[in-house]
Order: sequence, then C-alpha cells, then structure tokens
Amino acid sequence: MSRFHQRRSRLRQALKSQGVSALLITNFTNVAYLTGFTGDDSYLLLHASGEVLLSDTRYELQIAEECPGLDARIRHTSASLFEMAAKDIAKIGGNKCLGVESNTLTLKQRDSLAAKLPQWTIRGIEDSVESLRMIKDKHEIESIRKAIQAAVKGFGMIRSGLKPEQTEIEIRNDLEYAMRRFGAEDKSFNSIVAVGERAALPHAVPTSKRVEESELLLVDWGAKCEGYVSDLTRTLMTTTKPSQKLRKAYEAVLTAQKRAIAAIKPDEIMENVDRVARKSLEDAGFGKLFTHGLGHGIGLQVHEGKRFCPGSKTALQPGMVMTVEPGVYMSGWGGIRIEDDVLITKDGCEVLSSTLAKEFEEMIVT
Amino acid sequence: MSRFHQRRSRLRQALKSQGVSALLITNFTNVAYLTGFTGDDSYLLLHASGEVLLSDTRYELQIAEECPGLDARIRHTSASLFEMAAKDIAKIGGNKCLGVESNTLTLKQRDSLAAKLPQWTIRGIEDSVESLRMIKDKHEIESIRKAIQAAVKGFGMIRSGLKPEQTEIEIRNDLEYAMRRFGAEDKSFNSIVAVGERAALPHAVPTSKRVEESELLLVDWGAKCEGYVSDLTRTLMTTTKPSQKLRKAYEAVLTAQKRAIAAIKPDEIMENVDRVARKSLEDAGFGKLFTHGLGHGIGLQVHEGKRFCPGSKTALQPGMVMTVEPGVYMSGWGGIRIEDDVLITKDGCEVLSSTLAKEFEEMIVT
Repeated sequence: MSRFHQRRSRLRQALKSQGVSALLITNFTNVAYLTGFTGDDSYLLLHASGEVLLSDTRYELQIAEECPGLDARIRHTSASLFEMAAKDIAKIGGNKCLGVESNTLTLKQRDSLAAKLPQWTIRGIEDSVESLRMIKDKHEIESIRKAIQAAVKGFGMIRSGLKPEQTEIEIRNDLEYAMRRFGAEDKSFNSIVAVGERAALPHAVPTSKRVEESELLLVDWGAKCEGYVSDLTRTLMTTTKPSQKLRKAYEAVLTAQKRAIAAIKPDEIMENVDRVARKSLEDAGFGKLFTHGLGHGIGLQVHEGKRFCPGSKTALQPGMVMTVEPGVYMSGWGGIRIEDDVLITKDGCEVLSSTLAKEFEEMIVT
Repeated sequence: MSRFHQRRSRLRQALKSQGVSALLITNFTNVAYLTGFTGDDSYLLLHASGEVLLSDTRYELQIAEECPGLDARIRHTSASLFEMAAKDIAKIGGNKCLGVESNTLTLKQRDSLAAKLPQWTIRGIEDSVESLRMIKDKHEIESIRKAIQAAVKGFGMIRSGLKPEQTEIEIRNDLEYAMRRFGAEDKSFNSIVAVGERAALPHAVPTSKRVEESELLLVDWGAKCEGYVSDLTRTLMTTTKPSQKLRKAYEAVLTAQKRAIAAIKPDEIMENVDRVARKSLEDAGFGKLFTHGLGHGIGLQVHEGKRFCPGSKTALQPGMVMTVEPGVYMSGWGGIRIEDDVLITKDGCEVLSSTLAKEFEEMIVT
C-alpha cells in the first residue's frame, strides 16, 4: 500500500465520525498530500468505497505518471470541475451529506456546488487533512531534511562569496540559484535579504542596498525539495568589529532561541514554548522588540499546522516539524532573527538544521 | 491623486450600485492593486467615506513605506484580522450590509465574520476589483512591458548558450536566474522546460532529460517586474535537420496563432478569437490535438480576467492584456506551443512580445 493510499485510508477513517458520505478536497496542497499529484486546479472526491481525482486535459499524462492506479476523471475545456464533481457526487449513496473544506472553499464555489446538488446538504469541515499533515511520516521528514540540506549548502556558498559591494537583490538571486545547485526544486518562499535597518522589517523585500552600508545582514530563506520546504534565518555580522549594541541584541536572541528549543518536547503546550523565548527576551530588556510569534509548522507549505504564539493551546506531538525564530527589531537601526527547523521526537526534539553555525563569533564574516 | 487613490475611487463608485455600506477586500492581489502594498495577510476595508488597511506588526514599516498617506490598523499577535475588521465595520453607518469577495472568502472566514457582526448582513460580491483590473492603465502596461523585456532577454541568453548535454532542470535554473539579471523580481510561474515527448504535457515539470534526446525543446516562461507578469512560450528545434512532422505541426500552430492575433480587436467576443485558432488547426488536421483554451488575461497574476476559450462571451476592450497560445500535443512524441502577450488597443492589438522570433527557420538552434 503506497503512502498516499495509507493517507487516504486514515482520512476515510476520520470521516466516518463526521457523518458525511463524501468529502470534496479542493485545497491543492491537500490533494497533493493525498495523491502525489503535484499540479494544481484539481480536486479529490473521497468516499467510503473509493476516490476519484478530478482534473483537466493539461494534466492527463502527468496524473498517469505521478498517481499510478488512482482513478482520475478529466474534464474537457467547456465543462467546469464542479459540474464534473457534481455528477460523481450524485452517484454516491449514504446520507447525501457532502463534506467540504471550510478553510479553502469560497462562497462562490459553495453556491455553485449547492446549485448542482439540490438534494444534498453541504457541510464545512475544518482541518480534516491539515490535522493529518501535522504529523510527518518518515518520507516527509526525509524530504524536509533534503530541503534543509539544499538551503544550508546554498547559504554556505553565498556566505563564502560575500562582498561589500553586493546588493540585497544580488545576494537573493545568487542564493536562490545556489540552492538549486544542491537539488532544490525552488525556493520555499521569497527570500528576505536585509542589510542593516532593512532588517527591522520582519518581511523585508530585497533592495539595491549594499552589504557595506551596515554592520549586519539578515537572511531568511528556504528551499523546496520533493514538495517539502525548509525555513531558516541567520544574521551575519559584516564587520570584523561589531558594535556592543549588536552583540548584546544578538546574544539575547540566541539565548531565547536556545531556551525555547530546550523546552520543546511531546505534550508541551505550544504557547508555553513561545513564552519561554518571550520571557528570556523580556529579562534581557528586549521584550517589546519581539513583535511576532515564535514559530510555525512547516511541511508542504511554509506555514502550516499550528503556531508557537500566545494563546496557542495545541500540545506538541512527535513527528511535528516547527520553526523556532525569535527576533528583535529596532526601527532605523536593524533587526536580528535566528531560525532553525525542529523535529519533535519521542524524547524531546532534534534540530534538523544543526549543522548551520549560529554562535555570535561564528557569524562574523571576515 | 495617486493611481491607487484613483482605483479606490472607481471601486467606491461601483459599490454604490451594489447597495452595501462597506466592502472587505480579502484577496491579497486585490489589496495590492488598490493600495500598492506588496505583502500578504492584509485586508482592505473600504466604505463610502474612506478606507483602512488591516495588517500586522511584521508589515508596519513596509506599509508606511509603500502606502504613504493610507490609514492602516496594525493587529497585535493575539488578535485576529477579523476581530480587528469587525470593530471597524461596526462603526460604519448605512444599511449594515457588508460586501465580501465571494471568489476569495472561505466558508470559515464568512462564519467568523458573521459571528462577530450579528447586526450585519454579509453579501458575496463577485469580481468587483477583478473587473477593474481587466483594463490596464499606462503604469500597468509599462510594468508588463518590463516583465516581457526581462523574459525576452533572459531567454536570449539561454538560447545562445544552449548545449546538447543540458538538462531541462539546468535550463530552467539558468533561465530564471538570467531573467533576474535583466530586472525581474522573480519568475511569474514555474517555468516549463520540456524536451521532446515531455512537451506533450502542457504543464510539464522539468526533469533531468537532456536537450540532445530529441529534436525539439519547448520553453514556457515569464518574468515578474513591479508586481506584473509576462507569460511566453517558444518551441525550439534542437537539430539542424528537423523532421517533416515537426515542421508541419509547427507551421500549423504558428498559422493558427497569427490568424487568432489578426482577429483581435475591441468588441470582438473572446470565444470567437479562440474559434479562429481552433478552426485553423482543424483545417490543418490538428484540431483534436489542441486540448486547451487559446489564452487568458495577465496582469498582477499570470491567470486573471477572462479567457479565450469556447463559451467565453466577454467582449474585448482596449487596455486588456491577453496571452495567445495555441498548441498541439502528441503523447509519446512531443508538443508545440507558441505564446505571445497581446495588448488590445483602440484599433486592434499590439503584440507586446513582438521582438521574440517565432518563424520556423528562426527557431532552429544551430
């Protein structure tokens, strides 16, 4: 039984308790998770005794390649996916209650489905696939390790070649190209490369600012391998004599990050891990400058599952992969963030990106 | 008055006839179009006498940079955007009817909003911003020209450097890097680089297949500049002696594309333009092998607005920018597609990508 088959079986089990006779999966990432199909514009209809992938002619051959043995229905240019779906749904027995993904299905899609299925009740179901995706299997962890490896190797090349006159944009371009040399299909999100005061923007867009214009360079980047992502941040000191202000802030962020990682273990509540980092930065006098959550799940998407943040009540479980990324930001001066990807294990956690240096002295580019 | 201000004014005018006292824009691309803000996770609340951008602390400085003069409300880590939106909405007068984007708002978001606004009616509105976006202003056309220029220049480098042993993946990597040398912020979608039989998949994912393994190479690519995209396709002959089969199919696709472009003018119905290309390929004996629509609108997204396809009843208007991309696909052999980006003008149309060669003899790589 393929892993996709196993995932669909688990979802089918979970659905029994929801009281629906079928589930229409319209989130393309969820479709990929359940089938192995990497294209878009396709839905999966899953019911008690089977499933069918609904797609169009552009993807006919790709589905045959990527999803051997999966039943697929290909629409023609003039029909809509919902028209095709409705015909298949109408044939399904049971209580005529169709589950849909309430996190993805739009109001327009709902109305369109309802009009084509007057005999059916449509019920929004939340996170049915997302909750399976939170716990990674060994294939997924292997892919995330590859995505981390490609990102780490790519960053190594950029760091080695760093020159004072390079711009944020040039570094971004070279970094994303370098990751592909090490097997990345793509970046996992738009890389952040921020010199000095630009780093005060947690989601800075690269500009033509040059490395030599400041004493710090923040890089937040990730690779995608086999559909899975990494998400890492390092802050480099681009001077041989970093200021005391920079050192103090850096050490505070690093200490907070290490304390948070040390607190990660199964059954720990996510907001508690966030609180460890927040408390650490407060004690160091940087509390108000840590303006975002501590981290988030990663997998097929760069933000998925639950978050390390105030109010996040989910308990950690083995197989989750989360970022841990405290930061401090000072408008007009700069920002420091340090981010690793962490796998929750039976006994605690494993820092998957542990080969990437992060001690202050190691971050000085000479 | 900035162009963003103008766009919001036009939207406000259009809303009057919809009978809502406010519109909550949750589609991030629409938010960008109306404000100039290039981040995500932010909504725009627009009403008769003003508007407010709802975002979070990560984007506080970026909004100040990108949207001077725009009223912004920044949420803190523990609140949700909808909680913040509901407070602002509750203060708005009028008929207590809130317009939402039915193409974007999910069932869960709708329920969340409704729970926070018990006194309000929530009404799904379709394409309110999308219909404005269909007609490009001079700034937008200028940005699309830049995106085409970066794509054309990048392709030129790849073509000049093509070697028999290069793989699809290597070409993809080099092409996307090259476009950035010419000012692209990014690719506009995942480039398709397909050798021989891989080109039979209209959305082929690059593999390690080498150029020398076939007589043809299909490349479908685009750049993004200032948020706007290009989308182009060329099919190269990677042999000095292309087969008669290849020549015949290529000429049929090129003739169909030229005839379709010649049919483009204001007031023409989109399905008619599709039909011109389809008829041309049918006459040449390739009708059944043209398995997708002829084209689509481009702008801030690579697929937006309406499509050239059977059943598409929209009339062309000056200021629309559309792709024209007929193709034929033969499983096990290959595929040919030729795609240009076309601006509808007062008198007919302008092929924005006209500097890119496409005659059969010009496509032979020597």
